[in-house]
This record gives sequence, C-alpha cells and structure tokens, in this order.
Amino acid sequence: MDAAKARQVADQSVGLLVDAWNAHDADAFAQAFNDDAEFTNVFGMTAFGRDEIGQFHAPIFQTMFSESTLEALDIRTKTIRGDVIAVDVHWAMRGARDPHGAPWPERRGLMSLVCTNDGEHWGIATMHNLDLPDTAMAQAQEVLQST
Amino acid sequence: MDAAKARQVADQSVGLLVDAWNAHDADAFAQAFNDDAEFTNVFGMTAFGRDEIGQFHAPIFQTMFSESTLEALDIRTKTIRGDVIAVDVHWAMRGARDPHGAPWPERRGLMSLVCTNDGEHWGIATMHNLDLPDTAMAQAQEVLQST
Repeated sequence: MDAAKARQVADQSVGLLVDAWNAHDADAFAQAFNDDAEFTNVFGMTAFGRDEIGQFHAPIFQTMFSESTLEALDIRTKTIRGDVIAVDVHWAMRGARDPHGAPWPERRGLMSLVCTNDGEHWGIATMHNLDLPDTAMAQAQEVLQST
Repeated sequence: MDAAKARQVADQSVGLLVDAWNAHDADAFAQAFNDDAEFTNVFGMTAFGRDEIGQFHAPIFQTMFSESTLEALDIRTKTIRGDVIAVDVHWAMRGARDPHGAPWPERRGLMSLVCTNDGEHWGIATMHNLDLPDTAMAQAQEVLQST
C-alpha cells in the first residue's frame, strides 16, 4: 500500500474517533472499532469488543470527559500488510476532569492504533492510549543519549 | 493461528526483550526487532529501524538503566492475521534511575507489540511502551463506570 492510501485510512479512523469524542457519543466512538477490537486506556484498563468499548465510554462521556475536547496534532502511519496499518496519533485534550473529579490540565498523549481491512471496510483492531509526561523527561533523556 | 501458537510467538519475542534488558545489551535488544521496526518509549520518543533502536538504548543501558531489571508480569495476545500478532505485556521494573538521575521507584507499565512473520522469522514491527500511573486513578474511573 502506498503512503497516501495508508494516510487516507488513518485520517478516516482518527476522524471518526475525534468527532465522536468531541460529541461525547460513546456509540459513535465504538463504531470506529472492529467487532472484536481491544481498547486500552492510559491507566491500562482494557475493554474487549465493540460493545464493551461503547459501554466503557458511555459513563465517562457523562462525567470526566463531558466537557472535554480532543485534537489530533500529528498522525504517522506504518504499513504492516496490505490490509494492516499501524497508526500513531499525537493528541491534545482540554477540559477534562480526572477520575477523582479534579480539573485535568491540558493533556498531551499518544494513541497507537492497528487498523485492519476485512475485505470491505477498514476498522480499528487494537488501540492503546498513553499520557505523555512533560517534555522535561524526554529532553533529559536526549542529553544522556547525545553524550 | 491458534492461541497456543500466538502465545509461543509472544513468549519468544518478550523473552528476547527481557533477557537483553536485564543484560543491558543494546545490540541483543535490537535483534528482537525487524529491520524497519519502530520503537516508541514512555516519553513518546521514537527510534526508527533496528540500528537506531540499538543506538537509542546503548547509552541509557550505561546510565539510567544500568542497574535496572525488567520482569514480564502478564502476556496477552491477539491474532490480527496469520502472520501478524498484537501482544500486550504488563511489566515491572526495579533499580532504574529517571533521566535526571533520581531513583525511579518500582515502575509498572504496559508494552504493546505488533509481531510479524516475514516467511521465515517472527520479529517485532512496532513497540510502544507506557508507564502506568498508580492504581488509584483506574480504581476511581471504575467507580464512575459502575454507577
């Protein structure tokens, strides 16, 4: 698959996720996933299958994330097979609250997807999400690696 | 592919990573990856290709991770294609220092791999690593999701 096609697939899946997130619509969010997909959040909690992914998000779209907005900052693709693509998405989120109810300062993170084509449609097979720490840790590690 | 075969593939790749980590051997660590693999660490830093993955780890195995030990606590597989497997590994690390040189308390995390077979060998195509926050956040989110 050429890079432009892979990018088109990635943009479609990421667009579905971002639009559903910003509408706080758990059903629409789940529709981006395959029937047997696996979703793992930043705390290492996993939901198995599209239905469970929807059920996982419905209550938190009414609470911690009810006023949150998600933005995709950067999308990178890696073609694994003609019908399998890995996608990395750097993102920013504003307006969230953490699970204890405290305001969650602007978050930066990285979601990694494996998207597959079943012969007719592309969908997400696995997603993992990661909160990035402040950039001071990465910068300090870069110093260690450059000496 | 049956689950036992997928687990065998996962155990092999994870075993290579863990053994190389505990020997602080960057070349051996890189050998677990495909030539064109992508590795992303817990800070969102990415190394592209086996050579760069080795160069990325060599200096930090001499510094922040020189006395660290890695343990795989739990391994879960998901077969994507006959020659593509997703692997989640919950891990614990002891004895590390953070990039600023401060002792890094026992870490718990989650590495997610995509392993592929090129017709002869299995190797890692992508790896993402994630530091898990303390379990209080996940427990508080579970309360939100159960009400």
